[in-house]
Amino acid sequence: MTQDILSFQCPIPLDEYPYVVMGHGGGGRLSHQLIEQMIAPALKNPYLDGHDGAVLGPVDGKIAYTTDSYVVNPLFFPGGDIGKLAVYGTVNDLAMCGALPRYLSLGFIIEEGFSMNTLWKILVSIGIAARETGVQVVTGDTKVVDKNKGDGIYINTSGIGVVPHNLRIAPDQVKTGDKIIISGDIGRHGMCIMSQREGLSFESDISSDCAPLAGVTAELVQNVNVHCMRDLTRGGLVSALLEIAGVSKTYMEITEEHVPVNSNVAGACEILGLDPMHVANEGRFIVFVPPVDAQRTVQILQQHDIAQHARIIGTVANGTPGSAVACNAFGGRRILSMFSGEQLPRIC
Amino acid sequence: MTQDILSFQCPIPLDEYPYVVMGHGGGGRLSHQLIEQMIAPALKNPYLDGHDGAVLGPVDGKIAYTTDSYVVNPLFFPGGDIGKLAVYGTVNDLAMCGALPRYLSLGFIIEEGFSMNTLWKILVSIGIAARETGVQVVTGDTKVVDKNKGDGIYINTSGIGVVPHNLRIAPDQVKTGDKIIISGDIGRHGMCIMSQREGLSFESDISSDCAPLAGVTAELVQNVNVHCMRDLTRGGLVSALLEIAGVSKTYMEITEEHVPVNSNVAGACEILGLDPMHVANEGRFIVFVPPVDAQRTVQILQQHDIAQHARIIGTVANGTPGSAVACNAFGGRRILSMFSGEQLPRIC
Repeated sequence: MTQDILSFQCPIPLDEYPYVVMGHGGGGRLSHQLIEQMIAPALKNPYLDGHDGAVLGPVDGKIAYTTDSYVVNPLFFPGGDIGKLAVYGTVNDLAMCGALPRYLSLGFIIEEGFSMNTLWKILVSIGIAARETGVQVVTGDTKVVDKNKGDGIYINTSGIGVVPHNLRIAPDQVKTGDKIIISGDIGRHGMCIMSQREGLSFESDISSDCAPLAGVTAELVQNVNVHCMRDLTRGGLVSALLEIAGVSKTYMEITEEHVPVNSNVAGACEILGLDPMHVANEGRFIVFVPPVDAQRTVQILQQHDIAQHARIIGTVANGTPGSAVACNAFGGRRILSMFSGEQLPRIC
Repeated sequence: MTQDILSFQCPIPLDEYPYVVMGHGGGGRLSHQLIEQMIAPALKNPYLDGHDGAVLGPVDGKIAYTTDSYVVNPLFFPGGDIGKLAVYGTVNDLAMCGALPRYLSLGFIIEEGFSMNTLWKILVSIGIAARETGVQVVTGDTKVVDKNKGDGIYINTSGIGVVPHNLRIAPDQVKTGDKIIISGDIGRHGMCIMSQREGLSFESDISSDCAPLAGVTAELVQNVNVHCMRDLTRGGLVSALLEIAGVSKTYMEITEEHVPVNSNVAGACEILGLDPMHVANEGRFIVFVPPVDAQRTVQILQQHDIAQHARIIGTVANGTPGSAVACNAFGGRRILSMFSGEQLPRIC
């Protein structure tokens, strides 16, 4: 979708309400105006009927359920914005469970004085991302907090997906011998946000990798024996590996040179003293499959634009359970450990 | 439940981390410590297994889905706290759809520097409220925002319920002739929060009415022909009546003297220039039933502690569609209109 969200005009007259006021979260006339004139038109679907909750049709199969809040700063960045992120992020968490995303909830916490026009742009972006990923935003809530008690806007989404198969796709399914496959280069999203915030400039802007993953994961689940999938969000590749190693009580070995990193991302990481393997992504993931399925997995991934540089980066091997090691071309071995988490604040 | 949440000791050593730091939301080591040592133990259930989302068993029937964010200030108040509110509020929205609440998601947005011990108290309160209402918190997320970009803690919950019947319980089911029944006195929660915040003192503190409603609504749905239910949260009784009148294109007439208001609440409203019918509640609701079911509805309600003062307050009558009128004993008639919404900020 390349639809320019700026081409939609804010339905609430900006000369009357240029800014969000406390009353827009108070449950009275202003709340209703916001819901009826802005939120419902942007997210249009039959479930938004003015009731406290949505009653959805019966779901055929198991359901997957997830939530995330989005506090990214800045709200707009190369390759995305907080609204798109709030849809893709939750859709991707459902995709990682092997589910088909169906329904979203949407909660806004808006700071008094936030630009009404910016709120509209975010809503339009959410609407476009929801249509693109085939989900419906069926229930929502808006709260307004006092000036200086927020930071523009925070968004929570939760999501419900349908699991159309009987496979268990989860960290505890990972087995010794499994191949570890990555869907593309790492560190774009985190370095995009950090370089915007720190005012770093490179030959070309680093663009976020934020992308919806449910299409490619659905195809994987149908065609190969997926043991586990994990998107590489906060904490990056290292956190994902160590979390899964911890739950599955396995040991992981990756080849550092096989992990793709864009040169601008590598440059930004060097300036800020960060390891790209710790940096967050919003459209990259790893897949664990038995060796027999590894090549087929790479092939399927590479047929999708968002995973065209997919490759095998490592193996679940024999070693200390719960740990992971990065090997390099010179025979060096580096034990991977989680960073504390303070280096990359508010990147999603 | 009268369990004193203060009797549980914070599992994270307070001399090491007396306050929440940015890293607790960064996806690294500190995030994991928070989840493993505090959040998982407080909310203990088999679904919290360290995956991005929870895969739940198949649901038999239609599902109800809702969300709310909680930004109440102060965080602790007579009769409740933000944690309890975040569970009850979402459980109640599901109850109003005629659903049995089953699963919750939980999203924290915490301000850097927030007391770790207070976070623990809130988590314990959430755990107790979840057990009390029979729901499981199966997925969650924690974000930390910079000092002065939040206000202690904001909480989002979403909820999934099961609809164990084929009735449609919704505003568009309300019909002319229906009786309007209220479950108890109004205005407690809003006036509890406002009097705490404004430093008003009365002979006795006003205690919030916050209470879980799914038990009594389940009994109602089994025994009477419920057309619609609505909890009287933000916007109070007037917003609820007007919203439902708007959707169902009906006209509502209530008798003002029949709407119960506690004398301390009435006093606080007078001081602050508020109409109790606009003030938020967290444990009161109205039910629309055909006249033949009205007495039975009142009887069922009165058997529950949380609705022992239930009574009929009005009728869906012939009149201007989408409007509501309050009649008084002297023959006066007052057209009800929504307030703008700025008078009662951050009461939930």
